This record gives sequence, C-alpha cells and structure tokens, in this order.
Amino acid sequence: MQSFELYLPVRLVYGSDSVEKLGAAAAPYGRKALVVYGGGSVKRTGLLDRVKKALAAFEIVEFAGIEPNPRVSSVNAAAKTAREEKVDFVVAVGGGSVMDAAKAICAGAKYDGDAWDLVKDSSLIKDALPLFTVLTNAATGSEYDAAGVITNWETNEKQAISSPLLFPKASFCDPAVSTSLPAWHTAAGAADIMSHTFEQYLVKEGNDVSDGFCETILKTVIKNAPICIKDPENVEARAAMMLASSFGCCGLLAIGNTPSPWPCHAIEHEISAWHDITHGVGLAIITPHWMRYSLTPETAPRFARYAVNVWGMDPKEDPMTLANAAIDKTAEFFASIGIPARLSDVGVDDSHFEAMADHIPTCWWPLSGALRPLDREGVLAILRASL
Amino acid sequence: MQSFELYLPVRLVYGSDSVEKLGAAAAPYGRKALVVYGGGSVKRTGLLDRVKKALAAFEIVEFAGIEPNPRVSSVNAAAKTAREEKVDFVVAVGGGSVMDAAKAICAGAKYDGDAWDLVKDSSLIKDALPLFTVLTNAATGSEYDAAGVITNWETNEKQAISSPLLFPKASFCDPAVSTSLPAWHTAAGAADIMSHTFEQYLVKEGNDVSDGFCETILKTVIKNAPICIKDPENVEARAAMMLASSFGCCGLLAIGNTPSPWPCHAIEHEISAWHDITHGVGLAIITPHWMRYSLTPETAPRFARYAVNVWGMDPKEDPMTLANAAIDKTAEFFASIGIPARLSDVGVDDSHFEAMADHIPTCWWPLSGALRPLDREGVLAILRASL
Repeated sequence: MQSFELYLPVRLVYGSDSVEKLGAAAAPYGRKALVVYGGGSVKRTGLLDRVKKALAAFEIVEFAGIEPNPRVSSVNAAAKTAREEKVDFVVAVGGGSVMDAAKAICAGAKYDGDAWDLVKDSSLIKDALPLFTVLTNAATGSEYDAAGVITNWETNEKQAISSPLLFPKASFCDPAVSTSLPAWHTAAGAADIMSHTFEQYLVKEGNDVSDGFCETILKTVIKNAPICIKDPENVEARAAMMLASSFGCCGLLAIGNTPSPWPCHAIEHEISAWHDITHGVGLAIITPHWMRYSLTPETAPRFARYAVNVWGMDPKEDPMTLANAAIDKTAEFFASIGIPARLSDVGVDDSHFEAMADHIPTCWWPLSGALRPLDREGVLAILRASL
Repeated sequence: MQSFELYLPVRLVYGSDSVEKLGAAAAPYGRKALVVYGGGSVKRTGLLDRVKKALAAFEIVEFAGIEPNPRVSSVNAAAKTAREEKVDFVVAVGGGSVMDAAKAICAGAKYDGDAWDLVKDSSLIKDALPLFTVLTNAATGSEYDAAGVITNWETNEKQAISSPLLFPKASFCDPAVSTSLPAWHTAAGAADIMSHTFEQYLVKEGNDVSDGFCETILKTVIKNAPICIKDPENVEARAAMMLASSFGCCGLLAIGNTPSPWPCHAIEHEISAWHDITHGVGLAIITPHWMRYSLTPETAPRFARYAVNVWGMDPKEDPMTLANAAIDKTAEFFASIGIPARLSDVGVDDSHFEAMADHIPTCWWPLSGALRPLDREGVLAILRASL
C-alpha cells in the first residue's frame, strides 16, 4: 500500500429535504450571497426558486450564464460582481460546470487580477469566498472535492484550479432534482463517473478496500445509468448515480493505490480545449482506446480483475482474454447508453492532435506514471485510434 | 434512499512515514502536547519514541495507563493534568480505548466538573482541546470519527461521548505498527470492524453504493484477519485491516440506508459495563445470536444478499436457506480466528441480564428501529442464547 492523505471537510447533505437546509448552513458565513447558475434549466425545474426560498433571510445577487466547459471570461466577470457587490459567500446551483466555475469565482473574488493566473499557479490562491453547492446532476463529483476545470479559449487551454480553500463548506444533493436531466447528459455523467473510477482503479497496484470501493462505483453506474435513461423519473436510480458521483472524484477511490496521472483526463482536456464537446462524452470515446493501448501481458491481470469483479466474467479464463472482453464490454456499455464511439462523430478532426500532444507535458502530471507509460507517441496513437 | 449527512473533517494520513508528519500537522495548534497512551506496548514497539521524535519541537506531558474499556476516572485524572499543565493539544497513541479516552480528555479539559457529565449530556461540550491520534490497531475506527466510549464502574454504565468538537484534527496510521499486535487483539479488532459494518448493512434498506462499500469492508476483513493471525508481520494485510477499520465507523457505510440503532453495540456495552471483557470479543459472541433472532421471512432477503455478495453463495438458493448458511458462516469465521463462542467462556454469567435489559432504554436509541424490532424480551433472548 502506498502512503496517502485523505481530507474531505465538505458537509455532504443528501435527501429530498436537503436544499432547504442551505440557509441554516450558510448563516454563519454572512448575509449576502452570489448565486451562480448556468442556463435556464434551474429556473424551469423550480430548483432556483427552492434555493431562493432557502436563502429568504439573505440578500441575493444572481450571476447566470455559466456555460458548459466554463470559461475563464465568465469566471472573471462573476468574480468582479462578487467583489463589487461585496458578497459574503457563493452558492453554485448546477452541475460540474457551474460548481467548477464557482470555485474559480470564490478564489478570483479574493484576487486582484485575472483568475487564469490562479488556474496556472494555485499557490497564488491565498483566500477564497466560502462556497456552497446545490447539485443538479451526477457526474463530476465537484460537490465533494476542491478542484474545478476551467477553459481558456484565447489560449486553447483547459486546466484544473485546485486548493484546499476551494472545498465547498456544504453540498446539498437532492437526487429528485436530477430526474429532469435529458438522456444525453445522464449518459455523459455516467461516463464521467466511470472515467474517474478507471483513472484510480486501473493502476499498477490497488488494495482490497480501494478496489472494492471502485468496483462498487462501476457496478452502480453500469446498473443504474440505463435505468435513468429508460425511466428518468426513477429517484432511487438517480440517487445511486448521485452517490456514485460524489465519491468518484474525492480521493476515496484511490486510497493506498499507486498514484495515477489520470491519462484519459489529460487527453480529454486537450480535446475540449480546442473543441467544445461534452467532457463525459470525450472521456467515453477515449477510454476504450486508452484501455487497448494500456493492455500488455504485464497489465492484463489488472484488467482481468475488472472483468471478473465488475462484469462477472469467469475467473478461470486467461487474463488477456478477460481483459479484451472487459474492454469490449466497456465500449459496448457506452454505446448502449447512446454515446458515439468516435471523435469524428462529435465534430473533432485531427488538425490539432500534434498541438494537444505537445501541450500535455506543460500542464499535467507526467504520463510516464500511467498503467502503461504514455509518451507523446502514445498520446497520438490513442487520439488517432479514437478518431 | 434516506436523507443523510456525511461530515468527515479528519485528515487521514496513512503510510510508513505517517507518524513523522505529526509535528508539522500539530504546529498551528500550539507548543505543548499531552501524549496519552495505555500500557507499555507503545514503549516496547518504539512507537512512543517515534511520536516524541516527531514532537521534538514541542513540550510534552505524558499520561500513561489508559485501560481497555477506558474509565471515566482515568479521563478525569488526565483532564486535570491537561488543565494544570496548560497543554495546547492532545495526542492519543494507541488503539480504540486510548483514542476514545483522549476524546473525553479533550472535552474534559475544557469543562469544570466530572467528565461523566459530558458522556451523559453531550450538549454540555462547548469546547475541546485539539486532538491528534497515532493508531496502533485496526478495530474501532475512532481515528476517523467524533465519538468515544467510556466506562463508569461506579454506576456500571458504558456509554458514548460524541460531539463534532471531538473529531481528530488528523490521524496518523502506519499499518506496520500493528504487526506487533497479538492474535487475540487482532481477532477482536476484526470482529469490531465486522460488527460496525453489520450494524449499518443489516438494516431494512440499503442502496447500491452503501451495500457495495459494506460488502467490501466485510470481505476485506474475512480475507485479511486470518492472514494477520497466521503471519503477523504481513504489512499489506495489516494495511487492509487498518483501512477497513478507518472506514467502518465514520458513517460512510450507512449513507442513505435506513438508520440503525446499532443493537449489538447496545447489548455489548451493557455486558462490558458489568464485566471487563474485550469489546470486539463481546460483539463477536452476540452477533450470530442477534442475527438468528433477527432472521424472519421478511428480513431473509437482506441476509441472503450478505450470503451471496460476501460469502459467494449461490443466488439461486432460497433466501431463508442462504440466510441461515451465512449466519453459520459468520459464527464459524469468528471461531476460526480464535474467538470463544459463548459469554460464559469469557466469565460472564446471567446475574445482571435483567439490569442490562432495563438499562438500554435509558441510554440508547430505541431498538424498535432494528432490522427486527427489539424489546426487553428480545434483548434478554439474545443475551440468554449467547450465554
């Protein structure tokens, strides 16, 4: 087992009555809230009204229009509003994009300059506004971690902002809220949760606890995502997906494991820095190709474990056969929930592949630490296979 | 899924280099430490020296002699020392008893009166010294929760003290430390972890995530406890046990489940309030009898799930057959790791059974909320069956 630290100081509040607990939780932090959200869906579903009612005792400033793959331009605009309005805390109402943007807004509000500086160098984050999140979908796990991913279209960069100061104080998760999510976003969220898990599970060495936790998350998504797509109103299935999302990205799944550089995320961030595709969809397209690239006689036992414990395959089969079958199953699963199989299906061509491969080493952990070490040629091979 | 809140603000630090990180973690909290431990084992193993070296920059006051089933008399004495010496924080070096006592000491040091008041009424806990723990064995999970169990021999009461103020700031877990643990304590720790899990898993309703997490912990203990007993120096097996302990009692295993009143703990606390037996051993003796009492046609599917997913039994068998087989397996497992099967084997007779059954409703959650509701007669039936 490897040394590790796990620190999860977020109060995770689940239930049909969770949103209504926001006011009491926020009370110690001040009287004026910046409520951040995306498009109109939180208005249509009534969630924004529930949030405002929960914050009836507070002064509220709204900032709408956070986009998918949230942009540093929006972050800077919202941070400026937060400063000018002298808000005491921020409430993110939305999915991963809104929560991620809100983290950057919390840091940006306390920084005199371009929030992109804070993305590029987290040591510049010395203070941040307190953050609360109200979750709308099961995907990124941003409700239970201290990081966000921000896109800069001027430089074609998509990078994480991260600091212990960016943990939400509390996250409010009502699974029924996610019943309004369309199939496309439900599927993309499922792929995101599974990718988070693969990045921590398919590593050189796990242990009985972390492996069991990872397999639990994968089996939960494989069982419940199709139910949510077929029967969007199924609150129990939505709740299972939301729980899987909260624990997918907080570090719990990696306890004691060989550290992973999250290679699929490295590659997907490059793709969506050039093409405005849905993050989970990009991950789902890349993942089976990354798995095939990473499968060697040495790594086969790890994939075979996945085959047996997640897909229920026969442990008496040889590891390479099991591994290949599990990778096929993974691709079939993504197809079964409606995710396209190729980058070209979502409008990505190969014109920036070289620039993407060149950029990763400037902003990411060394991919030499991946299950099968990845160099520039390896990244290009996976991109081309995914095209 | 039931509403729930999960809040785990403890920094969990694992690894062979973990103890050495104590000084840096404690530095923001002051210059003077009360180091609390039990008998001489932490001296013999060199752990106390490691702790002192990690605290080389601090002034240290030692308080030794915390007993198993830690007594409020020791808590009061240590709290007095903490006040008189004006220590800034407390470091618990030991297992569950030492950590539990240290939590009461942290609260007691800030309370002008008998610490037993704080056990009986946690609302009296308004402040507490910061706590750090250095773990020696895998059992109670006290390193990752905000509660401790204290015994009062004057009143024959054993009760929990609990407050969010009692979360350790950080817990330092070096699995190699636990290789010195004798087989008896290794087995008792295994039973304790399993009992924590059963109390959260064998409830009316679980969900895919919590059930998978519980099954992971149970399978981890069932696999690794026998390895630790046969090969005490096996650090990987010790590490798996220690991880299982940390996640066994922190609330993670109960997320979204029907709340449980922890019936086996209610009964065991009564027994060890009258008889100074090892907590985990008492739990292991009671558990199969509680399971048999709780098995009805209505509850059988829950036990059948345990049979299939933990013991690998054939899901095509009928639930009642599976349930009975899983309960037998549970009892056989405890016997296989050297735990006696009967209360009479550990010196407990039936002379206080009526007093125990009468006392539970005065200090515990209503056992009517258990998988099969338990009344006074039910408690007595389980006690008599365990004799």
